[in-house]
Amino acid sequence: MGHLMSAHTPAGNNESGYAMHELRKDPLLGKWVAVLKDSKEPEHYLQYPLGRRDAAEESTGCMFCSGREPETPPEIFALRQPGSPPDSSGWHTRVVPKSNPLFQIEGDLGRKGIGMYDKMNSIGANEIIIESPQHNVPVELMGPAQMKLVLATYRHRIAELEKDPRFRYLLIFKDHGKSAGEVYHHPHAQVVATPVIPKGIKEELDGAKDYFFYKERCIFCDMIDEELQNGRRIIMETGHFVAFTPFASITPFEFWIMPKKHNCAFQDSDDEEMEDLSFVLTTALKKMNWILKDPPYHYVLHTAPNRVPRKDHWHTLGEDFHWHIEIMPELLSRSGFELSSEMFVLTTSPEDAADYLRGASPLS
Amino acid sequence: MGHLMSAHTPAGNNESGYAMHELRKDPLLGKWVAVLKDSKEPEHYLQYPLGRRDAAEESTGCMFCSGREPETPPEIFALRQPGSPPDSSGWHTRVVPKSNPLFQIEGDLGRKGIGMYDKMNSIGANEIIIESPQHNVPVELMGPAQMKLVLATYRHRIAELEKDPRFRYLLIFKDHGKSAGEVYHHPHAQVVATPVIPKGIKEELDGAKDYFFYKERCIFCDMIDEELQNGRRIIMETGHFVAFTPFASITPFEFWIMPKKHNCAFQDSDDEEMEDLSFVLTTALKKMNWILKDPPYHYVLHTAPNRVPRKDHWHTLGEDFHWHIEIMPELLSRSGFELSSEMFVLTTSPEDAADYLRGASPLS
Repeated sequence: MGHLMSAHTPAGNNESGYAMHELRKDPLLGKWVAVLKDSKEPEHYLQYPLGRRDAAEESTGCMFCSGREPETPPEIFALRQPGSPPDSSGWHTRVVPKSNPLFQIEGDLGRKGIGMYDKMNSIGANEIIIESPQHNVPVELMGPAQMKLVLATYRHRIAELEKDPRFRYLLIFKDHGKSAGEVYHHPHAQVVATPVIPKGIKEELDGAKDYFFYKERCIFCDMIDEELQNGRRIIMETGHFVAFTPFASITPFEFWIMPKKHNCAFQDSDDEEMEDLSFVLTTALKKMNWILKDPPYHYVLHTAPNRVPRKDHWHTLGEDFHWHIEIMPELLSRSGFELSSEMFVLTTSPEDAADYLRGASPLS
Repeated sequence: MGHLMSAHTPAGNNESGYAMHELRKDPLLGKWVAVLKDSKEPEHYLQYPLGRRDAAEESTGCMFCSGREPETPPEIFALRQPGSPPDSSGWHTRVVPKSNPLFQIEGDLGRKGIGMYDKMNSIGANEIIIESPQHNVPVELMGPAQMKLVLATYRHRIAELEKDPRFRYLLIFKDHGKSAGEVYHHPHAQVVATPVIPKGIKEELDGAKDYFFYKERCIFCDMIDEELQNGRRIIMETGHFVAFTPFASITPFEFWIMPKKHNCAFQDSDDEEMEDLSFVLTTALKKMNWILKDPPYHYVLHTAPNRVPRKDHWHTLGEDFHWHIEIMPELLSRSGFELSSEMFVLTTSPEDAADYLRGASPLS
C-alpha cells in the first residue's frame, strides 16, 4: 500500500550504454555524492536492526510527562491553557533548560591559546522543547494543530535567544530514535545557541553567498524553480511550501521543506505560513514513517545567523540565504571512505525516494 | 587490567572555578569540538549493542578465503609464496577488483550540467585488499610480519594507481565491524581512486597549505613537536613514528599515527619506516581492541594527492602536507546538531583516552 512500483531508472549511462553510478555535486557545499545506479527499495533498509525506532516506552520514569513538572528545572517558556501557572500541568508545549547542557549560559568565552592550539569555554544555551504532554505520541500523530504550537515555540525561542549578543547561531534540531542519538524518548526537540557560527553552517552560508555574488540570485529560490519545473523530486507542494528530495542528498530518503517566498529567517514567517508549514511537516513526516516503518531520524532547522552579525559582516544575508528544514532518516552506517572524504554514497536515488514518498498515503 | 585509573581532570574552568565543557579548535579543519568536562570511561561505550563487533563468522560462504580464489574476479596483485601461480592459494595478501565497485575503471568522466546542477560518471577504481588468508584472524593478531606485507600491498597499489592521470586521489581505508559499515567479514581494506579530490580531503590539504603560508612550517611537524613536548596525548613513540590522540578529536579514542620525518606521501616511505609502522599499527590496534573490547572501527590513510597535480597546482604540497593514518573507533551515534553543525561532542577527552591507551597491555 502506498508504495509506487518505481521505475528505478539507471542513474547514468556511459557511452557504451552500460548503466553506471552517477556523481552529483551539491551546489551549496561542493560535495560530490555517488548515486548508485540500482536504487534500493525502502524494504532494504528495514533489515538493519540499527534502523528500528524503539517501541513505546513506559513513561513512569519520565520527568517530561504532564504532572511531573516539579522534577524538571523551572520552565523557561510554555504554551499553556489560560490561567494555568508555570511549572504546573495544563501545557501544550514547554521549554526547560537541559539538565546536563552542552553549552552553559553563565560565564564568558575565555578564548585562549594552549601551545599551538586554541580553546574557549562552552558558553551558549541548550534547552529542551517538550513537544507534547503525552509520552508515546509523536507530534506528527497529534496532527497539525499541535505541530503549529510546536513551531510557534521554536519561533519564540529563536526570537528570545537572538537578543543575546554572545550567541552567533541558534540551531533547533530533533533526534528521534536511539540510533539517531535520541537522549529522551518523550517527544522533544533541542535548541542550541553557539558562541561561534559552526563550520557546517558557515559552509552553507558561504556557499549561498558565493552563488549570490556570481548569479545575483538566491540559490534556494533557484532550486525551488528548478524542482517545480522538473517535478521528479517533489514530494508535495502547498500554497507556501515545497517538500522535495535534494538533487545531491547525502542520505537515502532525505528531504527538505522550503518556503516558496524568499525569507532568510524562520522567525520572520507569518502566521499563514506557520499554519501551512504545520500541515506540510506533519504530512511529510507521516509519509516517511509509513514508507520506512518509523525510522530513526533527525531534522534540523536551518535559519539565518543572529541579527547582530547579520546586519554587520553578513549584510547580504537577507538576500542570499533562505531558511528551510532538512529531514534525514538514519538508515545506514557510514564507511571510513565517506567519513574522511565527505563523498557520500546514496543507495536510493532522490528521484526514486520522491516517488515513494509522494505516493505514500499513510492511514493515520 | 591495563586501565589506568585516570585523573579525569576537568577540561575547563570558568572564573568562578566551576568546571565546564571546553571548546577546542581543530587547527587543520577549523572545526570546534566540545570536550565534555567529565570523561566517560571505556566501559561506558560497551553498553551500546551498536558498538559490538560481530563474533567469529562461518567462512563457508566467503570467496576471500584461501582455496576459493577462482570465485573472485581475477587478482590484480598478490604477495605470494615463490612459484605459486596467480589466482591459486599460497598468497599472503591479494588484491581483487570490488565486484560491485563504487567507481568503475572503464569510460570517461562525461561531466555535464543538468538544469542548475552538475554531474559526471563515477569513473575511478575500487579494489579489495584481502589482508589475510584466514577468515577470522584480523591482521593485528597475525603480528607485525603480516602487517608489513599488508602495508607493502597498500604501497604497491598506490604506486600503480597514481600512474592513471584520470585519478585525482587515492584513498585506502578499512571498515571493521558491521556498524562501521563493513561489507565483508574477512579481513580486508579497500582502495578507492576518485576522479576529483574529495571535499573532506581538499579541506585537509587547504588547511595544511594555509598554515604553511602563514608559518612557513608544516602543521603536522609542529603537531608532532607539540605533542612530544606536552606528552599528555602520546600513546606510543618509536624511532620513526608517534601515535597520539589529536587535541580536537571528533570521536572518543580516535588516534593518529604519523611519521616523525617530514614526508607527504606514504608510498615514498622507506623499508625501515614500513617495518617500524607495522609494529606501531599492530600494537596500537591491539591496545584499542583491549581497552574497548574489539570495537567496530575505521582507519584511513591520508596521503598526498596524485603526482600529476602535486607537481602542478599543488607545488608546495611536498612541504605542507604530511602523510598519516587516522584510526576512529565507531562507538556512538551522532545527533542532528553534530551532523549539521560539524561541531562534534567528545565524551572522553583526548588526554584521558591517551592515558587508557598508553597504559593498556594487551595479553596477545
